[in-house]
Amino acid sequence: MALIMHTLHVDLGARSYPIYIGRDLLGDPALLARHLTGRQLVIVSNDRVAPLYLGRLRDALDPRVAVTEVILPDGEAHKTLESFEAIIDRALAEGHNRTTTFLALGGGVVGDLTGFAAACYQRGAAFLQVPTTLLAQVDSSVGGKTGVNHPLGKNMIGAFHQPAAVFIDLQVLQTLPEREFAAGLAEIIKYGLIREAGFYRWLEENLPALLAREEAVLAEAIERSCATKAAVVAEDEREGGVRAILNLGHTFGHAIETAQGYGSWLHGEAVAAGMVLALRLSADRGWVPAAEVDALVALLCRAGLPVLPPADMDAGRFLALMARDKKVVDGRLRLVLLRAIGHAVVVDDVDGQEIDALLSGAVAL
Amino acid sequence: MALIMHTLHVDLGARSYPIYIGRDLLGDPALLARHLTGRQLVIVSNDRVAPLYLGRLRDALDPRVAVTEVILPDGEAHKTLESFEAIIDRALAEGHNRTTTFLALGGGVVGDLTGFAAACYQRGAAFLQVPTTLLAQVDSSVGGKTGVNHPLGKNMIGAFHQPAAVFIDLQVLQTLPEREFAAGLAEIIKYGLIREAGFYRWLEENLPALLAREEAVLAEAIERSCATKAAVVAEDEREGGVRAILNLGHTFGHAIETAQGYGSWLHGEAVAAGMVLALRLSADRGWVPAAEVDALVALLCRAGLPVLPPADMDAGRFLALMARDKKVVDGRLRLVLLRAIGHAVVVDDVDGQEIDALLSGAVAL
Repeated sequence: MALIMHTLHVDLGARSYPIYIGRDLLGDPALLARHLTGRQLVIVSNDRVAPLYLGRLRDALDPRVAVTEVILPDGEAHKTLESFEAIIDRALAEGHNRTTTFLALGGGVVGDLTGFAAACYQRGAAFLQVPTTLLAQVDSSVGGKTGVNHPLGKNMIGAFHQPAAVFIDLQVLQTLPEREFAAGLAEIIKYGLIREAGFYRWLEENLPALLAREEAVLAEAIERSCATKAAVVAEDEREGGVRAILNLGHTFGHAIETAQGYGSWLHGEAVAAGMVLALRLSADRGWVPAAEVDALVALLCRAGLPVLPPADMDAGRFLALMARDKKVVDGRLRLVLLRAIGHAVVVDDVDGQEIDALLSGAVAL
Repeated sequence: MALIMHTLHVDLGARSYPIYIGRDLLGDPALLARHLTGRQLVIVSNDRVAPLYLGRLRDALDPRVAVTEVILPDGEAHKTLESFEAIIDRALAEGHNRTTTFLALGGGVVGDLTGFAAACYQRGAAFLQVPTTLLAQVDSSVGGKTGVNHPLGKNMIGAFHQPAAVFIDLQVLQTLPEREFAAGLAEIIKYGLIREAGFYRWLEENLPALLAREEAVLAEAIERSCATKAAVVAEDEREGGVRAILNLGHTFGHAIETAQGYGSWLHGEAVAAGMVLALRLSADRGWVPAAEVDALVALLCRAGLPVLPPADMDAGRFLALMARDKKVVDGRLRLVLLRAIGHAVVVDDVDGQEIDALLSGAVAL
């Protein structure tokens, strides 16, 4: 029997949906059944997650539901149009009509791919998310961003498609490798930095309990993260304005991921190093005290996250890669900086020289 | 200088847009400039349309706009995920960011492909349509349906993505081959049948002027068709209910197109034969007088359209293909029939036997 510890309602008018946070959600037949559209289900997972959790999920399904399982190879390298096509091919070959439901069982890669397949399947099918990494739980659960990578950049092909429900099962975090757990913490820390100073201080205090994966503390951190993201997204569903603050550390981070090849740095790791750069830039402008940079570095280090970009990436490399970023508007690089802890702003006046100074400083950090 | 004969506002809240109908819209710099989002433009066309009209369009563009031209091979066979990818690849390679605008210069294939590429480009870019076939002008101008075909069915991968504006230039119809012009008339006739009995009678009277491609009569037929479709779509943007009536003749039609291979029957031709089947089914149920079937057959014949399905397609073949149609909900085939001329309804109680009887009758027609 599932224990629902928090239910968060993401309020998007006709596209509103619940996020359930708790234990054994995966094995609750009634909870799943309530959110199926028709009598068909396409479960997408990967070859690392499926052996751990697919059985429990399958056992919880009404036997009258026609289920197709698509198991992809694990990893960001497979977040491609080819994988998207593989999902669509299987769903069509097995006769799924547009009242079918797509369920993503996995991390961000599986979620983004499955959501995009659902968005495009016969011009839009229902989508459920069972995120199995901490990062996916606090990031892709809210916002409706779906998509795949392109050799020329991350998430360059995609759609906005809201899930019908998200099931965050805390038990799946117990088997998550340490490095991936830390990558999720990076995004959680981000929510504190951009908008919730109190939450940020709470995280500094409660990091040991989080690292020990105590369920109640995890549930609270996830709930506050999702709520923060939901509040930002509700103000700006299609990313025209305030939503951009969610990209703190991401423009630098995407450049790192692209330069190193998808999958060599985890997304959360690249964001961690990117957030340090953004905070240093903010400190260089006198917006936050230099001591806050040190405090963030200390927090990320305790969480086991990188605080420096790869040694081989100089300002020129960053600038060239960032120029291709989606955040570039009519040739001007847009970056998220902090006016204070808990108060992010978007700027478009950072020039090459400032990045140059920042990165020569970063190496000396 | 452009002559705008009608401007139709498609009312979809934040996604509302104008449809301009007139002469020389293609060559009007101010009209185009008003609808560009940023300073980048991706023009997608095909190798039959581009030589005729791309030059005029290019001449009308502000020279400061960075233009990428993607010219695809002509034909429904190229409405594939590969062509979609080719558009995205070029746009990314040439540095288009998400404030770029995609412009479709061509028929339905170019429009659907370009719209889908725009929908997915960095999760959604602006989209302009310059439909160059009569069918595209009255069909894909309204509704926001975009997508590509799959070997297992038409339009199986796609999105709803509304254009920012549609430019219907009547001059392009003067060079349209007769067969394609007739295919467009099939869709125009459809609008009369499903909802506008008066328009249907007007079409019966004005067919000679339409076939002579008289501009004022064409403009009126296009305006009334787009207005009818817009009214239906405004009631049901995402195709949950009444919008289904737009599919009169389409379920049969899609089966014909799939069976014959994409591109061997034109879409409008398949719809024409499909409408006759739907009207016969309606007459068999006693909903419309048998004389109306004869009148429709006569009208379609005068327009140069087919009125019978291919001789090699029996009821079994139709049923097998229609079972894969998007209009199938939980195993029940949904068809659009007429309660009267101008009054379409969706039914889900047509069984194999009725189709059987219909098709043995059709051959003897």
